[in-house]
This record gives sequence, C-alpha cells and structure tokens, in this order.
Amino acid sequence: MSKILTGACIFGQSGGPTAVINASAYGVIKAALESPNITRVLGAANGILGVLNDKLYDMAEEDSYELSLLLHTPSSELGSCRYKIADPDVDDTDYKRILEIFKKYDVRYFFYNGGNDSMDTCNKISRYMEKVGYECRVMGVPKTIDNDLYGTDHCPGFASAAKYIATSCMEVHKDTSVYETGTITIFEIMGRHAGWLTASSAVATYCGFGPDLIYLPEVNFDMDQFLADIDRVYQEKGKVMVAVSEGIHYADGRFVSDVQTSATDGFGHVQLGGLAAYLTDIVKKHTGAKVRGIEFSLLQRCGAHVASMTDINEAFEAGKTALEAAVAGESGKMVAFERELIDGQYHCKMKMQPLTSVANVEKTIPLEWINKEHNFVTDEFIQYMLPLVAGDVHYPTEFGMPRYAKLKKVLAK
Amino acid sequence: MSKILTGACIFGQSGGPTAVINASAYGVIKAALESPNITRVLGAANGILGVLNDKLYDMAEEDSYELSLLLHTPSSELGSCRYKIADPDVDDTDYKRILEIFKKYDVRYFFYNGGNDSMDTCNKISRYMEKVGYECRVMGVPKTIDNDLYGTDHCPGFASAAKYIATSCMEVHKDTSVYETGTITIFEIMGRHAGWLTASSAVATYCGFGPDLIYLPEVNFDMDQFLADIDRVYQEKGKVMVAVSEGIHYADGRFVSDVQTSATDGFGHVQLGGLAAYLTDIVKKHTGAKVRGIEFSLLQRCGAHVASMTDINEAFEAGKTALEAAVAGESGKMVAFERELIDGQYHCKMKMQPLTSVANVEKTIPLEWINKEHNFVTDEFIQYMLPLVAGDVHYPTEFGMPRYAKLKKVLAK
Repeated sequence: MSKILTGACIFGQSGGPTAVINASAYGVIKAALESPNITRVLGAANGILGVLNDKLYDMAEEDSYELSLLLHTPSSELGSCRYKIADPDVDDTDYKRILEIFKKYDVRYFFYNGGNDSMDTCNKISRYMEKVGYECRVMGVPKTIDNDLYGTDHCPGFASAAKYIATSCMEVHKDTSVYETGTITIFEIMGRHAGWLTASSAVATYCGFGPDLIYLPEVNFDMDQFLADIDRVYQEKGKVMVAVSEGIHYADGRFVSDVQTSATDGFGHVQLGGLAAYLTDIVKKHTGAKVRGIEFSLLQRCGAHVASMTDINEAFEAGKTALEAAVAGESGKMVAFERELIDGQYHCKMKMQPLTSVANVEKTIPLEWINKEHNFVTDEFIQYMLPLVAGDVHYPTEFGMPRYAKLKKVLAK
Repeated sequence: MSKILTGACIFGQSGGPTAVINASAYGVIKAALESPNITRVLGAANGILGVLNDKLYDMAEEDSYELSLLLHTPSSELGSCRYKIADPDVDDTDYKRILEIFKKYDVRYFFYNGGNDSMDTCNKISRYMEKVGYECRVMGVPKTIDNDLYGTDHCPGFASAAKYIATSCMEVHKDTSVYETGTITIFEIMGRHAGWLTASSAVATYCGFGPDLIYLPEVNFDMDQFLADIDRVYQEKGKVMVAVSEGIHYADGRFVSDVQTSATDGFGHVQLGGLAAYLTDIVKKHTGAKVRGIEFSLLQRCGAHVASMTDINEAFEAGKTALEAAVAGESGKMVAFERELIDGQYHCKMKMQPLTSVANVEKTIPLEWINKEHNFVTDEFIQYMLPLVAGDVHYPTEFGMPRYAKLKKVLAK
C-alpha cells in the first residue's frame, strides 16, 4: 500500500484530436472530482502550454451534466498543442517553470493524454520531478487515431476513426454501384507510418461493401503493381474501390505524396490536391475509366456521431484508471489495454506500462497481417478489429444535431 | 371514385443516389405488395433502362425483413441511370418498347423515383400512354439531395444530406479549434445551381459550431469580396470556416471551378470538382495562413448512418402515398410535400402536383433568405431547415457496422 498523497491534479490533452479524447478527459476529471485525495482538479488549456502559461481551468466550476457530455464531444475540449519539450539535461527552463506552477497549485498529480510525443513529454516531466525530489505522480493516458502506441493492444480514438472509415466506405460502395458504367474510387486515409486506419477499411469489405485493394505504409509501394492490381479488378468486376494510406512510399523511402507535390501538369502548374487527387489522375490516364478520389481528411478523426461505443467506454475507463492508479501510488506509467477473451467474449483489461518503454516507439501492423501480394489484409486483422468497432453510439441531440459539452472554462487563480 | 384498375406495377429509381431513396422504394413496394389491385410488383433494374432491357425484379420473391432494411440502406438498391429519354414527337422508339414491356407484364401502374430529369421522363411516359390509349397510371416520387424540385416544400433525400453536412461541419469546427494557431477551412458542397445543401451548413453555425461564411450559386461570386470577407473574419477570430457550393460562378456565368474537366454526365451537365483545392490554393497565397480544403464528395449524399429520421419517414410516406393515390385513380402527378404547422408543430402533408408543372423546373433558394452581403443565409432559412433535420436515426447493425438490405433480385419472367 502506497503512501497517501493529497494535492491538486492537472489534466492536459495533447497532439491531434480524436472522437473520444474527451471521454478520457471525463474519466480523469470525474474520478478526480470524486477522489478524497484530490484537492483540486485543474484542466490545462492547450496541453503543456497551459501549464507553462499558467492557464488552468478549475473543473469544479463546471456543471456535471455538461461534463458528462464530454463523452460525445469530439476533439480536445481543453485545447491541444504540438509543443516539443526540450531534453531536461540540455535545457531545463520549461521544467523549472512547470515545477513552479506545480508548487503554486500544490499539484501532486499530473495526467497527460496523447500519443507518442505526448508520452515522451509525460516521461520527461516524470523523470524531472523525480530528479528534483518533488513528489508528484505522473501518468500517461493513451490517445491516437493512428493506433501506433507501443505496449497496448490498441489505442483509444483508433476504433472510432476506423468505424467512421469503414462505415463511409460501405456507404460510398453502395453509392458507386448504382450505375452500370465502370467506376474506380480511391480513398486517401490518414496514417503516415502505421497503416492501421487504412487497413480498417477492410471491415467494410468483411461486411460486403468495401475496398478491393488496400495499400499500407508498412510495405513498399510499387506503382506498376498498383496499376496492374486495378486493371485486374476492373476487368473482373467493372468497379474498383481502393484504400491508400497517406504514408505509402516507394522502396527508396520517398513518399508517393511527396513526389506529387513537386509534379506539374503539362502547363507547368503545380497540381492541386493531395495523394488521392494525384493517384486519381494517374489511374484515370492509365485506365480511361471514371475515377474519383475521396480524402477523408479531418472528418475521419472527429466523427463522434459514428463513434464506437466500445471505444468511448474504453477511453473513459483509461482516464478513470489513470486517476485511480495514481491515487493508489502508481507513477511514470501509461494506462494500456490488454485484450482478453472471457468465455469467447472480448474483454479489455487495463494495465500499466512504464512510460520509458512507450515514449517515441511506433507500433505498425504486423507484416503477417498483410497479404503476400501487399494489397490487402488477412483475416487475423479483421478478427482484431471486429470487437473494437462494436457498440452503437447514441448521443444527445438538440435540433437533431449533436449537443456538445459547453464548458465555462473558469481560470484557476 | 375512380374506376378500379387492376394490374402489375413497375417501380424504378433514377438519377443520383440519396440516403433515403430506398425508403421511398420500400414505401411503394410495401404498399404495392399489400394492395389487392396490384397483381405483381416489379422493380426496374437501373431505372427506365430496366424497362427498356426487360430486366425487372420480382419483388414478391424478397424476404420481408430484408425489404424493411431498405429504410436504412443508402443509394439506389435497384440501380439507377442517367438515361435521357427522347421527345416522343421526335423519336418514339423507346416509348414503343416501354409499351411493349407494359403489355407483356400487364403493367397498369408505373412509379418513377428521381429528380428533375426523372420527373421529365415520367411526364413523357405518362403523356405517351395517354396518347396511345394504354391505360396506365404514372406517378412521380420526388428525390434529390439538391432540394431543387418545384412544387414541393422540400425533397426526400435533402434533409439527410443536409444533416450529414451540418454534423460534419460541427465536428470539423471542433477539430480545427484545438490549436492556438490560426486556420482557415473551406468546405466544398454539392449543388450545381441550387445552394440548399451548402446553405444547410448554417444549421451547424446555429448550433454553435459552423461556417462563418457561405457562398451560394444563387448569387454572383466575387473573388475580391470573398478574400476580403476571409481577411475580416480571420482578423476577428483567428479561425475561419467557409462553405462554398460547387456551383459558385462569376457575374459572367463562368463557374469558378470550371478549370477541371470537360467531361459531362448523360444530360450534358458539366461535371464539377476540385473547387476546394483551387480556393485553398488561392486563400493560402492571399493570407499566408494554414488553409485546408475539404470536399464532402459522395459522402454527403449517401450518409445513411446520420440520416434525418424525419427524412426517412417522409421518403417512405411519399412512396406509399404515390402507390395509394395511383390505386385511387391519380395519374400524371408527383407526390409533393406541404409544410403545415399544427399547434406550432411541424407537420408534412402529402399533396399531388401535376408532372407537367414539375418537370425540368429548378427551385433555388429565395433571394430574401440570403443576406445582403451574399455571404450567409438569414434566420428564415434556419427556421425552414430545423424541422427537416430533426429525428435521430437508429439503424440495424452487425459487427457494429450498418446492416444493409440484401435482396435476391430474382428476374421476372
């Protein structure tokens, strides 16, 4: 049994938003407000920047119903940042400032919700506080649509983005199949180094209406093979649906999307649009068919209206567990998920991973889950996905539109 | 009381798909299967092409549960077409063939579900059958995400696309507001000549998270004014969200986006696209800010997972009413919607419009619903929209994904 530590807590959100990062916020905040050991619950405005700038919201000022709406409010309600904190051995300016703020508010608990870079920030703060002998329990709460955090079966935020993508693929599949004329549709999906999200489009195929071909950044991209794959499916079916990761790259490491930004059309104009537009152009010229590129853009990471209820529940649980574990004595850890099968049923168990083992490591799709033609995923991947996207969401509405949390955001003094 | 007419019916879907066109199909088919006057219910494969090619599905062969799933299955389940039928006075080949097929199956009822062009097809068939003295009741069932059909308060399919757009705008608004850095987001929304869908993004603004500026094809577009508007909002707020219709055009009539393609669809409409990328480039150069273009593309017209329940119910009712009205003696009409307020509550009343008054007429947004700066809509527009997007959808799922109707599509002999 650890020593009882009483004091304020700070919770911050960092990195790119997701559909469920606020569910984790609600998990931390609700458990913190209910904990006798937490004297004050502070939300950092724009992540670590809020600490550095002494811009902290007093969460006790918030209405409890509005706080509960965080479960269905996409994006980072407290604001986010992409601030890269220095190595404390090189420059400890930021750390001194953080310590000053921690002392000012008697902060004894710090929770940081984010992806790889945020876990690095979290880890550095944890080690610094230890080094200077300031007693403070520091915990990471995972979050990333990219699903690339090490040491966890999956990451909160991923399943909802995956569900958005798979659902949208199904709908577009229905849409593009109505005319007798041939069509080719190319989806561009987020994920620079890890193809989890792009691969999740295969769930749509499993349900009968999804891509025929999937190209991932885990393996090298070959344009000739890509065009040959499309030709083959087009000849077979007259319709082709393709999902490509924004991070597909040639064998020499060049991103396909980088090649296109320097490309010009016949008139010397730089071509507009992203990877989808570029591939659409190439495939159109190659096949002569009707080709449409669709970029899911920001829509895929903030689609709370079609979030996975499993994801929402797990994101909430991750936040709550972080708070409870810290109060119980844990520090320097990230909450992680372990998949268990109990009587054949999926179950998600919370566990602790040392931040040092998680920070800055990227987890990509196991190569054995990619078919040998490098143009689709295996059934193992589908089986991994199915429990994650389960659970229908029902969110509060007003005028038929989502009713998001409206926080007062009263600055702490 | 009209004469009782007994015989087979054909139902066909035409034009671009919507999220709820199959709800109308279900309305017609269910009522037809239940009607003692309808001897056989035939679904035309790919609209009028299915009649011309004698490719008709026997709907009595379908499982009733699968048919009911049409309520939540997007796109045109029987297939669609963009076939332009000739003027019968110029070339009556198609009409003779249609008559032949009608006689073959003893078709006495014909229902056609589509937009402007489809109502024209429907009207021509109706007049031809009358001219040659073949007794057949012909009815149009409205459908268009564009909401541009004349003689009806609104069109089935519009509200669901509008709800998709407004919901997505809200989500992206949350997403783009997380960092302290300034951002400009430009949405490209469907609508060649009518700005209803683009304007529907204002519902998101009404709910607190939507575009600052809206540009519609009902008025002329001025690039200098557009950039000045963006500058002003950017200076005020640091974030700008803009919705533009794909059909925005300069005072001389040129589409802002007619750079892209000279390809045309079957009706000679120039296909538009790439506007978001084009404007993003211009705004980026003008402001130096971070600018992102988002094209809702096909996603906006097939978003059944976020359909308006009001829309689904009304689409079903339109189909059912068409069948019942025809059985009762109506012909040469399109089912239309009249908005009523009963005790202050929105109510949608079905009425009949002569096909001749509907065919080929486009209804655009009343100019008085556009603000005098031509960069937003008025509150009258919002009040028009709110009842239409109301009603949360709950659709059947399997593995967390939508469970669409799987029809056998047994060919009639």
